[in-house]
Amino acid sequence: MVSFESDYIAGAHPQVLKRLMETNLEPLSGYGTDPYCESAREKIRAACGCPQAEVEFLVGGTQTNAVVISSMLKDYEGVVAAKTGHVSVHEAGAIEYTGHKVLEIPQEAGKIKAETLRRYLKAYYADENFEHMVFPGMVYISHPTEYGTLYSKRELQDIADVCHAYQIPLFVDGARLGYGLMSPGADITLPELAEICDVFYIGGTKVGALCGEAVVFTKCNKPKHFLTSVKKRGALLAKGRLIGVQFDALFTDDLYFKISRHAIEKAEEMKKIFRSKNLDIYLESPTNQQFIILENKRMEELKKQIQFSFWENLDDSHTVVRFVTSWSTTDEDLEALRKLL
Amino acid sequence: MVSFESDYIAGAHPQVLKRLMETNLEPLSGYGTDPYCESAREKIRAACGCPQAEVEFLVGGTQTNAVVISSMLKDYEGVVAAKTGHVSVHEAGAIEYTGHKVLEIPQEAGKIKAETLRRYLKAYYADENFEHMVFPGMVYISHPTEYGTLYSKRELQDIADVCHAYQIPLFVDGARLGYGLMSPGADITLPELAEICDVFYIGGTKVGALCGEAVVFTKCNKPKHFLTSVKKRGALLAKGRLIGVQFDALFTDDLYFKISRHAIEKAEEMKKIFRSKNLDIYLESPTNQQFIILENKRMEELKKQIQFSFWENLDDSHTVVRFVTSWSTTDEDLEALRKLL
Amino acid sequence: MVSFESDYIAGAHPQVLKRLMETNLEPLSGYGTDPYCESAREKIRAACGCPQAEVEFLVGGTQTNAVVISSMLKDYEGVVAAKTGHVSVHEAGAIEYTGHKVLEIPQEAGKIKAETLRRYLKAYYADENFEHMVFPGMVYISHPTEYGTLYSKRELQDIADVCHAYQIPLFVDGARLGYGLMSPGADITLPELAEICDVFYIGGTKVGALCGEAVVFTKCNKPKHFLTSVKKRGALLAKGRLIGVQFDALFTDDLYFKISRHAIEKAEEMKKIFRSKNLDIYLESPTNQQFIILENKRMEELKKQIQFSFWENLDDSHTVVRFVTSWSTTDEDLEALRKLL
Amino acid sequence: MVSFESDYIAGAHPQVLKRLMETNLEPLSGYGTDPYCESAREKIRAACGCPQAEVEFLVGGTQTNAVVISSMLKDYEGVVAAKTGHVSVHEAGAIEYTGHKVLEIPQEAGKIKAETLRRYLKAYYADENFEHMVFPGMVYISHPTEYGTLYSKRELQDIADVCHAYQIPLFVDGARLGYGLMSPGADITLPELAEICDVFYIGGTKVGALCGEAVVFTKCNKPKHFLTSVKKRGALLAKGRLIGVQFDALFTDDLYFKISRHAIEKAEEMKKIFRSKNLDIYLESPTNQQFIILENKRMEELKKQIQFSFWENLDDSHTVVRFVTSWSTTDEDLEALRKLL
Repeated sequence: MVSFESDYIAGAHPQVLKRLMETNLEPLSGYGTDPYCESAREKIRAACGCPQAEVEFLVGGTQTNAVVISSMLKDYEGVVAAKTGHVSVHEAGAIEYTGHKVLEIPQEAGKIKAETLRRYLKAYYADENFEHMVFPGMVYISHPTEYGTLYSKRELQDIADVCHAYQIPLFVDGARLGYGLMSPGADITLPELAEICDVFYIGGTKVGALCGEAVVFTKCNKPKHFLTSVKKRGALLAKGRLIGVQFDALFTDDLYFKISRHAIEKAEEMKKIFRSKNLDIYLESPTNQQFIILENKRMEELKKQIQFSFWENLDDSHTVVRFVTSWSTTDEDLEALRKLL
Repeated sequence: MVSFESDYIAGAHPQVLKRLMETNLEPLSGYGTDPYCESAREKIRAACGCPQAEVEFLVGGTQTNAVVISSMLKDYEGVVAAKTGHVSVHEAGAIEYTGHKVLEIPQEAGKIKAETLRRYLKAYYADENFEHMVFPGMVYISHPTEYGTLYSKRELQDIADVCHAYQIPLFVDGARLGYGLMSPGADITLPELAEICDVFYIGGTKVGALCGEAVVFTKCNKPKHFLTSVKKRGALLAKGRLIGVQFDALFTDDLYFKISRHAIEKAEEMKKIFRSKNLDIYLESPTNQQFIILENKRMEELKKQIQFSFWENLDDSHTVVRFVTSWSTTDEDLEALRKLL
Repeated sequence: MVSFESDYIAGAHPQVLKRLMETNLEPLSGYGTDPYCESAREKIRAACGCPQAEVEFLVGGTQTNAVVISSMLKDYEGVVAAKTGHVSVHEAGAIEYTGHKVLEIPQEAGKIKAETLRRYLKAYYADENFEHMVFPGMVYISHPTEYGTLYSKRELQDIADVCHAYQIPLFVDGARLGYGLMSPGADITLPELAEICDVFYIGGTKVGALCGEAVVFTKCNKPKHFLTSVKKRGALLAKGRLIGVQFDALFTDDLYFKISRHAIEKAEEMKKIFRSKNLDIYLESPTNQQFIILENKRMEELKKQIQFSFWENLDDSHTVVRFVTSWSTTDEDLEALRKLL
Repeated sequence: MVSFESDYIAGAHPQVLKRLMETNLEPLSGYGTDPYCESAREKIRAACGCPQAEVEFLVGGTQTNAVVISSMLKDYEGVVAAKTGHVSVHEAGAIEYTGHKVLEIPQEAGKIKAETLRRYLKAYYADENFEHMVFPGMVYISHPTEYGTLYSKRELQDIADVCHAYQIPLFVDGARLGYGLMSPGADITLPELAEICDVFYIGGTKVGALCGEAVVFTKCNKPKHFLTSVKKRGALLAKGRLIGVQFDALFTDDLYFKISRHAIEKAEEMKKIFRSKNLDIYLESPTNQQFIILENKRMEELKKQIQFSFWENLDDSHTVVRFVTSWSTTDEDLEALRKLL
């Protein structure tokens, strides 16, 4: 069945898999110390225009969020995030499992505003009981957000300015970063992002890899003995090569960007199909996740022929559903979608 | 200086201290196994009209919330609470420290509505991604709330009905329970409360004791090996007698209720003073915490002569402040207040 | 350089990689719900002769230990393990990170004895202070052990008998299980192991997979909402297929067993080389890890030409080192070793 | 019944209780900010000869160990302790609950040797796999130990020297510190102890207080925002005065030392009684805990007439039991003991 269920329905981009094949029998040292990991790090540093960046590889998104947040926060701190943030809602409490609170603030279409953040932080320190509360110790945003929306460069810089005024790092969850950077709505480049934020990750799982996320510490701020902290959290891969080789392939000849652009082009075509069929767009998204509103009966029928995902119940008779493109979306997929709608 | 800063500004009620004196040199076994603890348990069971209740003593409120919640929740569960709940805001992340999320829901004047809760739980289970989210495994409310407000018996029963429909326990934080039960606004008795909820605690720290909270498991639902779980959390008192003797005194001759009523009477008089001085009441509270709005300049001047506590910044020029009465509030305190205002 | 550094120096067995290629572009659902995971589960159940087994896939060994142990233990329990156990020494405190103590008991060549365990458990419950101590809530053993040694069927059954007398589960870390089952020293089959223990895992990372461990709950004892607990620990793979496809390949046509036998054959040849060169064997191991004692100067020289791993400092002038074979060891590797020694 | 069960069988020393009475109705601010806490801090600093010491009050021993250790360790570190240490055995896993491992090393009569520690730390860093292990980040010793034994000044200094060579703090659990300092076997003073170690606590619970331990950070090394970390662990007392007033009394006119000396004198008399009755001394202890070996039948009979505590099963027919004196032991208690034996 044709599937727009997520951006992780296929395996790896063929070029990525090819590199895994080619390097498969080379004996390599473990835990991210092999030359492919090193090469991937170097290429990522170059792509970020950030020669001092420290790059570490982890397996998946929730794991990466939990490892980065918990190893960077101090004991008495929590992480500020949008109420709709992935860490707030869809990680089964992985951040709290590390002993830290997610401090939820209001959002719009998945995005937080610098002004909201500033008011929140100001109110926190103006509260005479602040020592009895969780210190805001980091700001987490996702780009693209969980709703497929994007921050502008100005918006990101403003958020970073607030963070730095309060001396807390800004962490960007880039599980779908490629799709954000290649969107027609993007006005920020990878080097600009690297300059603005303190730590972020380049998502592999949703952008062409079998698994893997590349964490980039941009300000010489990688936590001391990070490898041990990663191991302690059960997140250290014995065959680090698995992720190193994949990112090395993704950052060779701009593959990461090319396949991201492909997904965006397919998303734009999909939007056109939705519009031509007069479907209710729930939210205008410039990236690879598209949200539409379906009457429940129609949704049930459509489900039999095509895969998409539940987003939320809108009312008793309507549901918001999500259609996602990715590097693996084909013209045939879209043609099938067009015919079905 | 006269103080209305909190309900824990004084030591213990003299009768409580007297009993500590009288029993002081008796050799007793530790960890809550002494006869005073047992006697206090028996008296509390009687006062609750709940012969099967399991009663355990802990030292303070945040500790009690963390111990009860974390030892009753399952691994994959979190606790639902009002966004303004003590566990949500003023416990420095003590619940998250135990690895569990506080699932915040909307409130009004510190209270949650059964309907809000029902909608929340229904939406949770209707969400197809619920297995990637934190299961709501318990409901926490405070009575009186952090704003001094009270639930009616009907409201509590409705909340409990929702909990039981979803097979999760209802936990009532009774740090100021005495003041709630003795309020003119109260329409629930201690036995009724014990029948409605699954676990609650009777606050001692704020109601006449030096320290101590009595946790009441009403449905034969005390977690197995609770003593070990308490010890593991650093919450087991060697000299359990310290709390046992105090609660034994508090539940002799209705002392707990009498001193609670005293605080309420003083609060009513304080409200009259506020009204007579045309002060802006921030929120109508039927218990011992009263919230008024002060212009900042006036607040600063008043601070020099009387103690009260910051609650929140209302706007740039006004602050909400809290005045609290307790078992130790005297007529002289109120007279001094009247003169100052 | 020729490497005997570990059993995870190569990528995946070619047949495994081939299956990843063949299935790569099929759109599949995530989180272990795809048909390859299901097929792999079915084949593992068959190989275990345990139709009721619940099989779940995780990424790596330390992660698997932490997830299984922490989701099966009760709040007040810890896990009993050999002082040399992987969970005791080489997981950077991953078990403690989940809030549970590793209760270390004496061992010999990596193995614990049923009698040692029985004495430990008996002493625990005979201690009048046992409620102030960590309850032994599970027994962890590795098979093969960290020293390459094996339990006999009798020994395993005896340990299991002690566990069951105390009503605690026996968990077998099978990170190198294939090498244990195919050893000439093995007297237990996979179905026998499944019958004896309560939960174990079949290691993939060290036996032909890029990554992945298959946890087998043999007694209908998979923790409730395990998927959520896995996610909460950052251990849920979006593309569950990555592990499902690999285990499906490993358990097709006995591939897992065949490649394990290959490693054992190579290990036997390696032992012969060591003996022929009169090297000091540190410990007699019937599996793929071999430990020899080298004079430090010789060790340093050898290091320049061949890769092996540090095990422990024996004395000021000698070091115990480890040579490991695996499914990827070739005759050329051994020939090179022979020449160098 | 006469009791030698523990040093926490009575309430508070009468002088301590008297001060609680006298200050009872004064309105005071909470959380350790009142003048009695400040006065107690000042007196403790003076007694320690350590003007820069930062003194904080906590409720009990296990709590203090967990709070101090977990707030001082870094994420990737554990605490080194004797295998018989209180944190290793008798705290129900309270340290592990904070996510940190207790690294157990060999001991003799409850004491670790500097040389053992040095070898352990050296071996740790000489192990090429150390990054996969828990970093030793602090050393915990108890003085007196769990077996009533004492470190000499030389021994403590040697241990501290090893700690400082590895740049890790030395933490001394002084739950029974008074009894150690006043022992005829003591050759270290409080100021010397304060100078040697990095953090220690002065036990109140077992030395004359209802509850309470005074933590002394001697090297300007109190963790930042410690109050918040304490609150997060459920260990912050609302009425901080309860402990402040008690320590203020204990450190007025040397009360703490006088009552400790009393306990030691009674212990010396008790030892004479044991010797005169030809009882088997299990272990020579110079402090208030005395361990003797009883034949099980005799033990059972003795239990009916006098209280003492189980220590460990020696063999099938003998048990090690503990008799403890304290500030509250009377001549009548000893006379009764003499008659019974």
